[in-house]
Amino acid sequence: MSMREQYINAKLSWIAKNTKASIIRELLKSTTIPGMISFGGGVPDPNTFPRHEMARIAKEVIENEYKVSLQYGTTEGDEILKSEYIKLLEKHDGITGLTSENVVITTGSQQALDLIGRTFLDKDSICAICSPVYLGAASAFKVRDPKFITVPMEEDGPDMNLLQKKIDALTDDELQRLKFIYIVSNFDNPTGISLSLEKRKQLLDYAYSKDLIIIEDDPYGALRFEGEKIPTIYKLAQDDEKYEINPVLLLNTFSKVLSPGLRMGFTIGDPLMVRRLVMGKQAADLCSSSLTQRLTARYLEKYDPIIGMKPTLELYASKRDTMMKAFDDILTQIEGISWTYPHGGLFTWACLPKQYDTGEMLEIAKKNKIIYIPGEAFSVNEESREEVKNCMRISFCLPSHDEIIEGTKRLLKTINEYREMKGW
Amino acid sequence: MSMREQYINAKLSWIAKNTKASIIRELLKSTTIPGMISFGGGVPDPNTFPRHEMARIAKEVIENEYKVSLQYGTTEGDEILKSEYIKLLEKHDGITGLTSENVVITTGSQQALDLIGRTFLDKDSICAICSPVYLGAASAFKVRDPKFITVPMEEDGPDMNLLQKKIDALTDDELQRLKFIYIVSNFDNPTGISLSLEKRKQLLDYAYSKDLIIIEDDPYGALRFEGEKIPTIYKLAQDDEKYEINPVLLLNTFSKVLSPGLRMGFTIGDPLMVRRLVMGKQAADLCSSSLTQRLTARYLEKYDPIIGMKPTLELYASKRDTMMKAFDDILTQIEGISWTYPHGGLFTWACLPKQYDTGEMLEIAKKNKIIYIPGEAFSVNEESREEVKNCMRISFCLPSHDEIIEGTKRLLKTINEYREMKGW
Repeated sequence: MSMREQYINAKLSWIAKNTKASIIRELLKSTTIPGMISFGGGVPDPNTFPRHEMARIAKEVIENEYKVSLQYGTTEGDEILKSEYIKLLEKHDGITGLTSENVVITTGSQQALDLIGRTFLDKDSICAICSPVYLGAASAFKVRDPKFITVPMEEDGPDMNLLQKKIDALTDDELQRLKFIYIVSNFDNPTGISLSLEKRKQLLDYAYSKDLIIIEDDPYGALRFEGEKIPTIYKLAQDDEKYEINPVLLLNTFSKVLSPGLRMGFTIGDPLMVRRLVMGKQAADLCSSSLTQRLTARYLEKYDPIIGMKPTLELYASKRDTMMKAFDDILTQIEGISWTYPHGGLFTWACLPKQYDTGEMLEIAKKNKIIYIPGEAFSVNEESREEVKNCMRISFCLPSHDEIIEGTKRLLKTINEYREMKGW
Repeated sequence: MSMREQYINAKLSWIAKNTKASIIRELLKSTTIPGMISFGGGVPDPNTFPRHEMARIAKEVIENEYKVSLQYGTTEGDEILKSEYIKLLEKHDGITGLTSENVVITTGSQQALDLIGRTFLDKDSICAICSPVYLGAASAFKVRDPKFITVPMEEDGPDMNLLQKKIDALTDDELQRLKFIYIVSNFDNPTGISLSLEKRKQLLDYAYSKDLIIIEDDPYGALRFEGEKIPTIYKLAQDDEKYEINPVLLLNTFSKVLSPGLRMGFTIGDPLMVRRLVMGKQAADLCSSSLTQRLTARYLEKYDPIIGMKPTLELYASKRDTMMKAFDDILTQIEGISWTYPHGGLFTWACLPKQYDTGEMLEIAKKNKIIYIPGEAFSVNEESREEVKNCMRISFCLPSHDEIIEGTKRLLKTINEYREMKGW
């Protein structure tokens, strides 16, 4: 180690020493290699962004509202944006009775996850998550160095029996240190799975009985291709009189429905919890950009981004169809492979037999000019890595139909070559 | 406590339990009371923002560069913005040889302070700060619960003798846990004081000899009214060959020179340190808004915000003059009062005799329709509170000339009434 490295490393905190750069971030650099097909990214197609409307509104809010849009804002967020967002939630999710105090606006959902980490977790805290888990949540929570209880995903949500078994086995002291259950309720990242209505109710009931908070992350709820919308866990808690307290924090973002470049995240919850998140945000960045907030607010006054999503959803659904057919046609040659059928969102989750390691296999994939995200990226420790290292997250939103078919062929080739290399 | 409060409070982390809402934030709510004169805020005059230029450029970057400006960006920040910022630093601060790897773009300087906290501080860490200290820095560092070494401000910067005495007295183990010295080098918030060239050199030499990092926060450096610019500590370290490592992280922001609504912060430093901050930012919010970054980049290509500041600086300087004259004319009636004469920035720091408590006095001030920020807001613990509770931060940038004179009269009245109430 150079003297310079020594000088700096000696000053680092334990979390800085233990943080690794995100696998996804590193992987996405490979997507610029010519001819590479990427099943990796979860970013929306920029041609779906309403750029003409936003350009016009941006000009207006700077010219006419510069005293707000170019000035410091409040930590909790633009009041006009909050009020427009509350209307949108009422219209599309049937969530009623919200006031400004139920909402904090964040830099995407990622900042909400970070604020939740600092608001609820200490070094000796415990939180319950699914395995695999959205890695942005894992990295935000890991900053606080908690312990994790992990439960596998089933077709309709987490394995509730195992979750209850693991929590029931905690001592009183451990139960006190168990702070929340984190869940992506619709079209989960990475699995593409949605919680059934029954599992939502079951999860809520159980969490409430143990005085736990539920962190319901819902970035993909508006990206449903078919079937009826299932109420959020937040709404179920709000509508049922038996819950005297709504223990759910509902996280949302406009990164998938309007534009990620705005970094617009919204957290809905009990004013007492929201107030704590706001106090955390004050130390984190004082306030979010007034410009992007006011721009979003004025956009929402004139347009409904959820309705505006319809053409995009048709596009994503047709790509999902192409991918599912290609998998049926091509990947069924692989013994023991399975994948989820997503009814919305951006991802499917494909699992190979247990002996596979998709992280190791990635080198062959890159050589074959195909990229996916290896399962281990969605694990928090050695135990959960073992559960998912044979799987991979596969995104269908950005590659073309032809690329989906060609990419699937390359995936088959990759798996076959990996198996041969292993001598299986 | 209600059942709801109990339910939620039982889940909070120690930092959430121990965080109080910022005094300033609460105080600024009073500024909307009719007839109130505020010496409190440090926000720029919105009429100084180049709104026409920014409105036009915003429209262009959304229309023509939507694939970047409305999409996710990299965690470290927009490459074009970095390159424009590096040119600006070279032009105005004479800092040369920087590359993209020396820069990370943050949500204002506040996020940089938060990332520095998580990158360097653990619960058992120590950091050295001035007393009084910028409260945004204090609140960011306090999230990590470190111990503080505080040294009083003198007319030309921190009391270096005391700083050295306190650090020299540390055990080897404590010295290892001492991570950095935090300092606002120009027109400090709250004191308005700048470090002399001698103190900059002395601080750098001493920090280097102890293997410490220096966090040099410089939001106000471009707001100099008179006198020659003093090189940043970062530049001193870079230019002197005896420093094999540049131990300085230099924090900057466009919140005072362009617009706070963009939330544009820049941290400059050794690539190894910058890389650690980027990894922290990845968990904190993935990336900043691509839109505000690209907007700022294109603005910098066409305009120089530092040159554009000249009319604003003349305005601020004339207000400083009005305030200094009003203080000379009016406040000298108070025995034992003193204040700093700022050569730039937004603030003066006025201290009353030791028995005063400006926090307690604030109630009388509000009744008299004048607001300042009490000294205790800039302390980190009981010891440092004692050092500054007789002082107050007074801003001259936003009130009109007439309001400055009238506000000073109200301040005199307030101090007299407080003294009478105390029976002194």
